[in-house]
Formats: sequence, structure tokens, C-alpha cells
Amino acid sequence: MAQRPLDVLHKSLDSPVLVGLKGGREYRGTLKGYDMHMNVVLQNADEIKDGTPVRRLGLVIIRGDNVVFISP
Amino acid sequence: MAQRPLDVLHKSLDSPVLVGLKGGREYRGTLKGYDMHMNVVLQNADEIKDGTPVRRLGLVIIRGDNVVFISP
Amino acid sequence: MAQRPLDVLHKSLDSPVLVGLKGGREYRGTLKGYDMHMNVVLQNADEIKDGTPVRRLGLVIIRGDNVVFISP
Amino acid sequence: MAQRPLDVLHKSLDSPVLVGLKGGREYRGTLKGYDMHMNVVLQNADEIKDGTPVRRLGLVIIRGDNVVFISP
Amino acid sequence: MAQRPLDVLHKSLDSPVLVGLKGGREYRGTLKGYDMHMNVVLQNADEIKDGTPVRRLGLVIIRGDNVVFISP
Amino acid sequence: MAQRPLDVLHKSLDSPVLVGLKGGREYRGTLKGYDMHMNVVLQNADEIKDGTPVRRLGLVIIRGDNVVFISP
Amino acid sequence: MAQRPLDVLHKSLDSPVLVGLKGGREYRGTLKGYDMHMNVVLQNADEIKDGTPVRRLGLVIIRGDNVVFISP
Repeated sequence: MAQRPLDVLHKSLDSPVLVGLKGGREYRGTLKGYDMHMNVVLQNADEIKDGTPVRRLGLVIIRGDNVVFISP
Repeated sequence: MAQRPLDVLHKSLDSPVLVGLKGGREYRGTLKGYDMHMNVVLQNADEIKDGTPVRRLGLVIIRGDNVVFISP
Repeated sequence: MAQRPLDVLHKSLDSPVLVGLKGGREYRGTLKGYDMHMNVVLQNADEIKDGTPVRRLGLVIIRGDNVVFISP
Repeated sequence: MAQRPLDVLHKSLDSPVLVGLKGGREYRGTLKGYDMHMNVVLQNADEIKDGTPVRRLGLVIIRGDNVVFISP
Repeated sequence: MAQRPLDVLHKSLDSPVLVGLKGGREYRGTLKGYDMHMNVVLQNADEIKDGTPVRRLGLVIIRGDNVVFISP
Repeated sequence: MAQRPLDVLHKSLDSPVLVGLKGGREYRGTLKGYDMHMNVVLQNADEIKDGTPVRRLGLVIIRGDNVVFISP
Repeated sequence: MAQRPLDVLHKSLDSPVLVGLKGGREYRGTLKGYDMHMNVVLQNADEIKDGTPVRRLGLVIIRGDNVVFISP
């Protein structure tokens, strides 16, 4: 049976996720929340460039409009 | 008779698909879910550059907004 | 009398079409379906660059959001 | 009195128009149809680059989303 | 009191306006019409580059989606 | 208590504002109007590049879609 | 339990936040307001480039459409 994208997101709550954005930036952190626009809340988030953490953002709200993929 | 795009997507559930995104990135994996915005869920997904897998993402939710094509 | 764009698309079902996308990529194939967002389904689709087929995709769903033109 | 943009388009039916797209591509052809999204249907359409026809497309549906201007 | 943007546009009917688009193109002409999406109709319109008219378009419908500013 | 963005805009009516657009262009002028899409009307507006006025536009309607920030 | 993105934003009222925009510009300031589009109001805002304040904007309304992330 088909899994709805937002259900998959829901199952990833409190787990680490990788969020890829338009333009190539990525963020890694613990998924603490989301909404139907795929706006997401990450805790202990790091900004990642070429696989390497380049900045610690801690708590961060990412606007769904920029999201390319979310990988649990 | 005309085939509706989402019906074609539905028939591809649990089958391998290639997903092409804006900017040229592609993902290959097993289609596990989708919704009406063409958000899709892939399992065992690889990121592809110039035809070669460059990164294993495993489970991944791709936001429909970025999708250019999906090829079963 | 005015011809509605989607009616022209409808008349092209089961016929070869050329689909031009943002960024210049083009796809040629047999139009098997479409919806009101101009999402289209092509069969036996080839990706075209500078007039030359560069990749065979076979069955492909193209998201209307990326479509610039469709030429029957 | 103000002329509504779609009324001006309507009056151009069966007449030659120049359609300018985002990114600079232009198409010239006979306007055969349109809808409220400014999707248009051109007949005997040529793709124009720097004022010169570079490709004959014949019948073409152009997605309004890409249209910058239409000049009757 | 606040002036609504579309009211200001309405007062400019039959007057010359400069329309600036995304990407830097500009059009100068007589405003003959508009709608709520800021689609506009210009008469005797010239395309302007770096302050110089580079092409006469005459009557032109400009899609609001591309408009950055309109200056009466 | 939270201040709503449009209320802050409303309080800036008849005062000078700096409007930053996508792509880096900025406009400075007296805010004479706005609507819920953040379309704004500026009076005595100057186009600004790198902090320097490069063109006087006078009265100008700026489409909200292009606005990055408005600073009273 | 899931935290909704706008609730996290609400809890950051009157606290310093970092706002990252499309194209890489960032703003740091005290969050004074927001709405459901993620339009935000910052007080004592600085524009940041490569981690360094390059311009003081003071009070600023940022259009949600441009927001990539907000980090409390």
C-alpha cells in the first residue's frame, strides 16, 4: 500500500533527518516538528556543505518551500 | 483513452523509478508513496549524477515542487 | 473560434509530441495522458539535447510546472 | 476606459502574435486559442532567437506561466 | 490615507508608464488596461535596455507575474 | 505581544522606507500605500545600487512578489 | 509530540533570531512579529554576510516567501 509522504515524515519525529534544500545547502538534525507545507523544525541542527558540518544552528525552522528532500 | 499522470504514478508503486529534479539532480529508488502534489517517497534511494550513483540516501521524501519528471 | 489549450492537448493523445522544459531540456514521445496542470504522460520518450536524442526514458510523467511548450 | 488584458488577447485571435518567454526565447505564430492562465495556442509557430527564426514548431501550446509578453 | 496599489495603477490609465520586469528588461508605453494580477496592456510600447529603446512592440500585453515595478 | 507585519507596514505610511528586492535592487521613497500582497506604492522613489541613488522613479508601484524586505 | 513550526516561531518572540534568505543573505535581530506566511518583523536588525554584520537596518519586515530558515 502507498505510504503518504507526510506520514513518513511523521514517523521520523524525534529521529535524525537530513534535509536538502534548493541550491544544495543541507541541514542535519533531530526532527521535532513539521506541518503540511513541509515546514520543518530541527533540533541540534548543523548546516552541511559537501558532507561536512560548517555551522551549528541548534534549533531551526526550515521553510518547506525550499525543501528538495528529507531523508530519515 | 487518456491516462492520468497520477494513475501512472500509482501503478508504479513498489517498482523502481527515476526521479529528475530541477537543476539536474536525479534520484533512483523504489516508489513507496506519493500524494497529489507529486511529493514522493523512495526506498533504497540513490542520488545520481551523470548517470552514476554518488550517494545512498535510503528512505527519502522528495518534494513535488522540485520534480521535473518521474520515469517508471 | 478560440481553441482551448487543453483541447488541443487532448486531440494530440496517442500522437507524437515535443515537450520543451524550463532550462532547455526537451522530451519527445507519444502523448498518453495529461491533466489540467499540464502534467503529461509520454510513452517511448527520449530526452533531447540540441535536437539529438541523448537518453531513452521510455514511459515518463512530466510535471506541468516545468513545461514551456508542447508541440504536437 | 480600461481594456482588460484577456480581452486584448481575444481580439488577436487568428492574427499573428509575438510571444516573449522568460529567459528570452520568443515564438511567432497565429494565435488560435488561449485560456485564463494565458496558456496560448499558436499555429505555424516559429521559435525566434535574436530576431531570427531558428526552428519551425508548427502547432504549439505555450504554458502561460512562462509568458512575459504577448504582442499582437 | 493609504493608496491602494491598483488604484494608483487605475489613475495612470491612458498615461505613459515605465514597466520594469524581472531580469532587468523594461517597457515604456501608454497604459491602456490592467487586471488584478497586474497583467497590463501597453500601447505604443518600446522595449528599453539601459535606458535606450531597442525595439518597438506597439501593442503589448505584459504578464503581471514578471512585473517588478510600474512607474507612472 | 506580537506585531503583525502588515500592521508595522501600516504605521510606516507617509514615512520613508527602504524596499529591498530579489536580485539586490533597492528602492527608497515615501510609503503611500500597500495591500495584503505587500504590493507597495512609493512616492519620490529612487532606485539604489550599492547604497547610491542611480535613478529617480518618482511615483512607483512595486509588486510584492519581488519584495525581500521593507525597512521603515 | 510534534512541535508546529509556527508555534516554535511564536515562542521566539522578543528573542534574537537569525533569518536566512534565498541567495544567502542573512538577518539577525529581535523577533517582534510574524504571520502565517512566515513574514517576520525584526527589531535592531543587521544584515549579515559571511557571518559579519554589513549593514544596520533597524526595524525590518521580511517577506516570508524569501525565508529559507529561522533559527532562534
